[in-house]
Amino acid sequence: MAVITLLTDFGLDDEYVGVMKGAILTVDPQARIVDITHQIEPQNLVLAAYRIRSAYAYFPVGAIHVVVVDPGVGSSRDIVAVRRQGHTFVAPDNGVLSLVLDKNRIDGVVRITNEQLWRQPVSATFHGRDIMAPVAGHLSRGLALDRLGPAASIEDLQRLAIEPARLAADGTLQGEVFLIDHFGNLVTNIEAHQLERLTTGDRQRAIEVRLGTHRISGLSENYAAGPLQAPLAIVGSHGFLEIAVNCGRADRLLAACPGDALSVRCGSAPDKTDDDQGV
Amino acid sequence: MAVITLLTDFGLDDEYVGVMKGAILTVDPQARIVDITHQIEPQNLVLAAYRIRSAYAYFPVGAIHVVVVDPGVGSSRDIVAVRRQGHTFVAPDNGVLSLVLDKNRIDGVVRITNEQLWRQPVSATFHGRDIMAPVAGHLSRGLALDRLGPAASIEDLQRLAIEPARLAADGTLQGEVFLIDHFGNLVTNIEAHQLERLTTGDRQRAIEVRLGTHRISGLSENYAAGPLQAPLAIVGSHGFLEIAVNCGRADRLLAACPGDALSVRCGSAPDKTDDDQGV
Amino acid sequence: MAVITLLTDFGLDDEYVGVMKGAILTVDPQARIVDITHQIEPQNLVLAAYRIRSAYAYFPVGAIHVVVVDPGVGSSRDIVAVRRQGHTFVAPDNGVLSLVLDKNRIDGVVRITNEQLWRQPVSATFHGRDIMAPVAGHLSRGLALDRLGPAASIEDLQRLAIEPARLAADGTLQGEVFLIDHFGNLVTNIEAHQLERLTTGDRQRAIEVRLGTHRISGLSENYAAGPLQAPLAIVGSHGFLEIAVNCGRADRLLAACPGDALSVRCGSAPDKTDDDQGV
Repeated sequence: MAVITLLTDFGLDDEYVGVMKGAILTVDPQARIVDITHQIEPQNLVLAAYRIRSAYAYFPVGAIHVVVVDPGVGSSRDIVAVRRQGHTFVAPDNGVLSLVLDKNRIDGVVRITNEQLWRQPVSATFHGRDIMAPVAGHLSRGLALDRLGPAASIEDLQRLAIEPARLAADGTLQGEVFLIDHFGNLVTNIEAHQLERLTTGDRQRAIEVRLGTHRISGLSENYAAGPLQAPLAIVGSHGFLEIAVNCGRADRLLAACPGDALSVRCGSAPDKTDDDQGV
Repeated sequence: MAVITLLTDFGLDDEYVGVMKGAILTVDPQARIVDITHQIEPQNLVLAAYRIRSAYAYFPVGAIHVVVVDPGVGSSRDIVAVRRQGHTFVAPDNGVLSLVLDKNRIDGVVRITNEQLWRQPVSATFHGRDIMAPVAGHLSRGLALDRLGPAASIEDLQRLAIEPARLAADGTLQGEVFLIDHFGNLVTNIEAHQLERLTTGDRQRAIEVRLGTHRISGLSENYAAGPLQAPLAIVGSHGFLEIAVNCGRADRLLAACPGDALSVRCGSAPDKTDDDQGV
Repeated sequence: MAVITLLTDFGLDDEYVGVMKGAILTVDPQARIVDITHQIEPQNLVLAAYRIRSAYAYFPVGAIHVVVVDPGVGSSRDIVAVRRQGHTFVAPDNGVLSLVLDKNRIDGVVRITNEQLWRQPVSATFHGRDIMAPVAGHLSRGLALDRLGPAASIEDLQRLAIEPARLAADGTLQGEVFLIDHFGNLVTNIEAHQLERLTTGDRQRAIEVRLGTHRISGLSENYAAGPLQAPLAIVGSHGFLEIAVNCGRADRLLAACPGDALSVRCGSAPDKTDDDQGV
């Protein structure tokens, strides 16, 4: 009994998500289906790429992840399946898997062309229902990856031009606000390992973040650190630097939006963190 | 192990949907419950009728579909179960099943009166939880339809006055925008088979749609057809004519709302479609 | 196979809820996971306390209820498990379980300290994923409560200062609007048993509700009672007094908000209810 996850931009008002689940259960009545989210901004491939990369590894090995953000549905774009360390991704070949494609960790890539596995007739407008859902059902029943269609090379798959944070000549990390989460936290594109390289070992907290005119000193251990309603920097549970506000919303307090630039430099640990070195 | 689908106007903020699932699982711990949507506009029976008709057939035969849009809860309206080609619908008798009632395809209709199957005490305000959920659980455990209550005639069930699109004297199809979906597509009440009768065979695309001052020529094969940001007409995955915009939102570009009238006439194929006759 | 319910303030846009489910299924692939709601206003402990109290008892005995509204995540607050009449609650010790803590019905309380059951490494920002989800998975696999950590006393748990409705010296019940539900109904903090004490037996409907300048006479049996668009008082399915409007929204018609005061007094039955005594 495999887990099938769904990540789409379908929203929850229409019947589209339910119908995909019906199409899965028609093929594999035993499949366990879990929603990751259906609230991706319509056709925002970058956001979907980030969400599936942040989520997939928390599911059991063997899970099948169906990602349907598909502005080109019915056009000539392919649909592919990619296996990475026991997880299988089913998605249009439009870059939405960019952030899980690591050639050292990929066990297989195929183009999905075996029409015998699809729901017939196949509509031109809903391949999530007619192709990806039944294919996921067949995978969950144990069908081998190579039965879906011909093998492909990971190098041939589409990739989005996603700019990572980078180390500038002056020794600062230059990144941006990537998304605002439900709590108003600013999730950035700066990864924990980049911060680790910026500072040394136990000096990790000795950083200064600059965002617009704001300066945030030190790396906090949790969202309840520091003064109420003050901004703080923290490594979020997904491994990216976040700006949050203790008992508040960072997006409002700092008037920040996705795309806003920020920089991080190595700085001396601020006074306020001296008190809780023992944490 | 049966599939039970839920379609309600409860929204997702309150605990109501979760509580219905608890009531189902209390009767049948093995039931698989799938949400179709809970975001029907409160008490919008027509929209709910459309959604269940668009969704149900994608679930496995044997599925039980519980539809709770029930402005008359606790009043004298009945609750009924209707079986159609292996699918069973459980809903108030208020017209919400209008679009699945086809007397040639109905295998059974009963009024749900057997109180022994209900959760006790039955509240006056939440029959979804106290009657429909446990009844669905009993059905999913295999209880025969006639155990729910006395047989009824399909002619006696309530029906909504839903106006279908119609062929006018001048040979045009007269319809309306039925709903706006999550992507801003205008879903109309014009069905694919009506378009087929309007044109002949391979000339299906030779139509002209008029919506307000807009003219849309030809029937597209997919949402990515034609120029960017231009409107296009397409038969959606649910079998109705849709107006969409390539990489845009039709509701905004055309300033369209549910209820707006549109007409379709047979026209000569526009130039732009000549290029892709081979699709 | 146990049922695990989830109630959080995570919303549905981010991947957080899906990731918690992945963490549960990694421990217990057989767990059945049901969402109660994820739309608690961020960090609103009182609302979450009300929702879990309203919902839990409709799930089968043996259910595990995970409540993650956790503004203090990563700080020194504990995480606890509480067993009440066969239901087990897993939550931060921040008062969110206040309304299910009844010392006469509690079978066990433990502080969750056994790190061997947690996902490693434990983040400082997402204990729902790293602690509460896997612990729920272990419970659903049958692990005994006392394996989670040391026993605690119910008296030691945090409680919110939630003001119940009270009987004033003049014989009126003084309460407030507690929340507005999806249909615009005003759910109050006045419980059915308080109304029962205010009146006698079959005279239950002989009450008058005062809310601002509005007077509502009698207790209705259902939402469809009385004139269209007129306010009515009713005991909702959760056992609290509600103000609703037949085919309308009480919040708009009465311009009411959470926190608004209302009073109920024993009054003579109004004329309009004489007609439907037989209901």
